[in-house]
Amino acid sequence: MEMIKGGVTAAKGFLAAGAEAGIKYKNRKDMAMVYSQVPCKAAGVFTTNVVKAAPVLWDREVVTNSKAAQAVVVNSGIANACTGKQGYDYCKETADAAAESLNIPADSVLVCSTGVIGMQLPIDRIAAGTKKLAGMLEDTLDAGTLAAEAIMTTDTVSKQVAVQIQIGGKTVTLGGMCKGSGMIHPNMCTMLAFVTTDANISKELLQEALSEDVQDTFNMVSVDGDTSTNDTLLVLANGMAGNAEITEKNADYETFKAALHMINETLAKKIAGDGEGATALFETKVYNADTKENARTLAKSVITSSLTKAAIFGHDANWGRILCALGYSGVKFDPEKIELYLESSAGKMLIFQDGVAADYSEEEATKILSCPEVTALVDMKMGDETATAWGCDLTYDYVKINADYRS
Amino acid sequence: MEMIKGGVTAAKGFLAAGAEAGIKYKNRKDMAMVYSQVPCKAAGVFTTNVVKAAPVLWDREVVTNSKAAQAVVVNSGIANACTGKQGYDYCKETADAAAESLNIPADSVLVCSTGVIGMQLPIDRIAAGTKKLAGMLEDTLDAGTLAAEAIMTTDTVSKQVAVQIQIGGKTVTLGGMCKGSGMIHPNMCTMLAFVTTDANISKELLQEALSEDVQDTFNMVSVDGDTSTNDTLLVLANGMAGNAEITEKNADYETFKAALHMINETLAKKIAGDGEGATALFETKVYNADTKENARTLAKSVITSSLTKAAIFGHDANWGRILCALGYSGVKFDPEKIELYLESSAGKMLIFQDGVAADYSEEEATKILSCPEVTALVDMKMGDETATAWGCDLTYDYVKINADYRS
Repeated sequence: MEMIKGGVTAAKGFLAAGAEAGIKYKNRKDMAMVYSQVPCKAAGVFTTNVVKAAPVLWDREVVTNSKAAQAVVVNSGIANACTGKQGYDYCKETADAAAESLNIPADSVLVCSTGVIGMQLPIDRIAAGTKKLAGMLEDTLDAGTLAAEAIMTTDTVSKQVAVQIQIGGKTVTLGGMCKGSGMIHPNMCTMLAFVTTDANISKELLQEALSEDVQDTFNMVSVDGDTSTNDTLLVLANGMAGNAEITEKNADYETFKAALHMINETLAKKIAGDGEGATALFETKVYNADTKENARTLAKSVITSSLTKAAIFGHDANWGRILCALGYSGVKFDPEKIELYLESSAGKMLIFQDGVAADYSEEEATKILSCPEVTALVDMKMGDETATAWGCDLTYDYVKINADYRS
Repeated sequence: MEMIKGGVTAAKGFLAAGAEAGIKYKNRKDMAMVYSQVPCKAAGVFTTNVVKAAPVLWDREVVTNSKAAQAVVVNSGIANACTGKQGYDYCKETADAAAESLNIPADSVLVCSTGVIGMQLPIDRIAAGTKKLAGMLEDTLDAGTLAAEAIMTTDTVSKQVAVQIQIGGKTVTLGGMCKGSGMIHPNMCTMLAFVTTDANISKELLQEALSEDVQDTFNMVSVDGDTSTNDTLLVLANGMAGNAEITEKNADYETFKAALHMINETLAKKIAGDGEGATALFETKVYNADTKENARTLAKSVITSSLTKAAIFGHDANWGRILCALGYSGVKFDPEKIELYLESSAGKMLIFQDGVAADYSEEEATKILSCPEVTALVDMKMGDETATAWGCDLTYDYVKINADYRS
């Protein structure tokens, strides 16, 4: 597997565009389009929030029932959530506008929105923007970058990744982009993420690979514990790499799945590291848990603890908060048995062992915690299951961003 | 039922003291004692965190197995959590020191600690402080206030309450104090709370009344989602009011329970309103839910949402975040059916109805949200169960307090 430059336009046959459509207050890009030259198999995972945004309902329908998908239209600035029947009708109008411009069926158009909840979309600008984007589509990496920028809200950087693998002598490429910074605590997947690939793979296996992989990638990320109304992760596979179609769980499937995992994990970590107001990516690895589910629960409990997140911001090795978060996770364990380490590019240090603090230097611990990527390693000594979760520190800027997000 | 002045010394036969014992860095009161002239029936509820502080283990033993309880010794500054066997031995040494000074059995002494996790207690100072407090005990309201002040950590105000009721022609008094500001997300009860009463009631009914009532009081409070290692709520009943012992669930029991509820709810709300860095008490009332458990889950989900808490701080009627928090609570409901109101001393306003925003004035909404106590009212229209939860806003000061709490 090789990491390459680019995002959603890295794979063969995919074009993209990003532009201003006048949805956000300021002059900022706020609409993106991704298009495949040929119809794609689509897979998707969506928010488990009972309050689902209109585009989530639309896309679930397309992924489940349409013969193929061929384009994605995304707007940022307004989430089209809590907008009732009107909101759903606007999804259809957006898809109709794209279908007309691209000369494809409306039921092959996926639509996504992200931004403020409760406002109705300015549908005339959305329709005009859709037509504009259709005329701008390019297969260049720059076009992919424009699209990645256009879907940002409070994100401070755009988020892309691409990898190449070999399947049956053919070069297969996967590329992805995502956005997400606040209201991040995915449950099925994150805010908005899009993966394109020229792999030839059956729709069933594409969905299965995706659903399985999000458990260890997007679902292990949290910025603030708030599971969004809009979480959507879509994968489009157009088969243009020319490999024999993957229809069973053989070595080719495993190769594809490993590449998909690399894409998803990289995008998920980018979201955590760019959490609203964050100064550090905070990773927690749980080792030797009794079950996989418990390992995940423990790791997530640590990275979602407000007190632990604030301590990371303060570069304070206040490990008692980590122990506390493990303790209230709901998982049963013996606190006397576990070991806790802190690690970063500045070093690795044993912090807690045999039920009490290890003999460590606070000064060294602060050095470790002052790096932009910090990891807590927890050895449960109960079995051999492992999980990793990603979050970020809790800062003044998180409060600032969210106390007046709408103004 | 009548609210009266005072706290833990309000009921007959209870004495208290608070003093400096040199446990905190600065010259601040850090030890308190509560003592009853006669042995008491004791009831308690404790943290459900797997990582339990040593005093939690000690007190659970006393409440469950001792013939009676007669004194409580509390220190602030150090939590005596994650301190292994040494920590538990220190609980015993503290109880021994109190037992000797007060001439009571060591197994009738309850001990509590609150503060930093992971440090060992300076046992010589604790023992000296215990003796000092025993010599200072008074039954005045001022002595109760000194005790309430001595158990504070990041609290900005001390927290006391007292009520009187009539049972069988006798005046029965209940008084309480508590501390708690951060690491507040009780699950069985809050950080530290103490209720004293001269009621004559059986130990079994005292425990049952307490265990039942915390479900709707202390367990419905959250400051930051972190369930502490030390959460302890103790009730001591010494029978000195002279009422006939309450041994069955009759009208007297209901009268007593209503008074206990008033004490617990008042203390719980004081903790939420004094949450670390908070500028507002944020209450959520859920009406007409299908089950009591769902009503509680929905109310708690809203008051624990970081995004909603930040919006309250910003006086921003960003109601989409409340809908979002209801939606990810795990409770199934139809978003199109529910109604949401915001209310405070400045007025009450319909915000959301029929699946979309109501036609409300943002300016008026901001006025409502600018009060020190703000309520979100959620009508689920599914049944007739109700629950209320209390939290606070998320502010810069919360981050500040917790980024360098140990320094």
